[in-house]
Amino acid sequence: MELKNIMKYSVLAGGKRFRPILTYTVASLYDSEITKVDSSACAIELIHIYSLIHDDLPAMDDDDIRHSQPANHKVFGEAQAILAGDGLQALAFSIISSDPLVDADIKIKLINLLSISSYAMAEGQSIDLSVVSKKVDLNILKQMHQKKTGALLNCCIKFGAILNHASEADLSILDFFANHIGLAYQIQDDVLDVTTSDKVLGKRQNSDSIKNKPSYPSIIGLDESIKTYENLYQSSLDELPKLSVQSESLRSLTKRLMNRAF
Amino acid sequence: MELKNIMKYSVLAGGKRFRPILTYTVASLYDSEITKVDSSACAIELIHIYSLIHDDLPAMDDDDIRHSQPANHKVFGEAQAILAGDGLQALAFSIISSDPLVDADIKIKLINLLSISSYAMAEGQSIDLSVVSKKVDLNILKQMHQKKTGALLNCCIKFGAILNHASEADLSILDFFANHIGLAYQIQDDVLDVTTSDKVLGKRQNSDSIKNKPSYPSIIGLDESIKTYENLYQSSLDELPKLSVQSESLRSLTKRLMNRAF
Repeated sequence: MELKNIMKYSVLAGGKRFRPILTYTVASLYDSEITKVDSSACAIELIHIYSLIHDDLPAMDDDDIRHSQPANHKVFGEAQAILAGDGLQALAFSIISSDPLVDADIKIKLINLLSISSYAMAEGQSIDLSVVSKKVDLNILKQMHQKKTGALLNCCIKFGAILNHASEADLSILDFFANHIGLAYQIQDDVLDVTTSDKVLGKRQNSDSIKNKPSYPSIIGLDESIKTYENLYQSSLDELPKLSVQSESLRSLTKRLMNRAF
Repeated sequence: MELKNIMKYSVLAGGKRFRPILTYTVASLYDSEITKVDSSACAIELIHIYSLIHDDLPAMDDDDIRHSQPANHKVFGEAQAILAGDGLQALAFSIISSDPLVDADIKIKLINLLSISSYAMAEGQSIDLSVVSKKVDLNILKQMHQKKTGALLNCCIKFGAILNHASEADLSILDFFANHIGLAYQIQDDVLDVTTSDKVLGKRQNSDSIKNKPSYPSIIGLDESIKTYENLYQSSLDELPKLSVQSESLRSLTKRLMNRAF
């Protein structure tokens, strides 16, 4: 089996496509020329999928099911799954760097941000594995979530603005917005892991507690966790009117996120 | 242990540093302003080291020793070794994209070539694993070597020229040169694997035949393999006088490669 088909198995497995949707949504606030967003949206999703393939490996989180189908390594073996992830990471940088619709100076900004985020994701997963079965405080958990999830969400949101030469003021507002919904999203994931069935999640329920992973619910309880992520989403929403552009579509996407079931 | 220290263990383990030396050597043919080569040389070496960490994993080539010290996963475990490789790949693209000494349009050329090569390396390793214990013809072996080793060597050589705005004619000569020494280098590796002791290699002798990996010596014999790589090196050397610049230092580096013992 060729490596590209092993990659394709995971890339076309579905998923919410939340990250590219976010990138297109932010870009659409600024401009309607949406084809120049394609390479960014695609690259971000490929980085996300590569991280899922590696996270699912037996040496890592040892998950057998992803998006309601066997995890990549269950079908193609560990070696090919590792290589599929490696190839997807490289492909993400190829796709942006070869896009003829985007200027070189913008592409360099995107690639710099994406590579820093991808590095942070590896760091975040490294911390995640090192805290299994350990008591950690909320600060370490927050830092880990920031790296594992927040960094790439920050890319999603800022890419849409950078591609359209948004002002520094807008980028700074979007940075605040991104960091808040990034953390909210991950705490919500922790909560959904406890409250949602396997079938709806597309992966195993209670995977955190089964693996003795510290989570927001395990440290501050379920009700407090829900309150925390709802407040974070609300802070993000409160920031949007400060942007130089109308942001109704980003507001409604954020509200849909707040109310997601998986 | 922080991920950066797990990466550092392998990055600072030594090795021949042949790839960065090659990049600096080609760059020095064109220009003396060598600091702008640093990010390229460093990024290429990081990609090389990430590939070694992943290749050594139990699921891949299962090698315990690298550069005369325990392989990364033997010290830090498989999960952290996978993440160290992942982090190094991301870091390579960060380093080039954040270099203030290189123009954006040049950086995009470098990143595009490096990402395509890094992708090819994953494909090459995927083919390598799929042909274990199989009879393959020389063409498949050649294609595999081109992806596993040739692609990154092509980067090393062309980066030095691209950084200095070399002409298309020179780039085309260097492309021929790179493809020939790339294959020569890998066939020579196959030969050295048979003829050189563990101590000199810094890894196990006969690792190809122990793992039932097809190699040039196993297909066409030792003498014919030596003749093949010597001819390839000679063809590369014959190309150099066509360059628009003096190439004595690249010629002597190539001769040293031909005569290397490990």
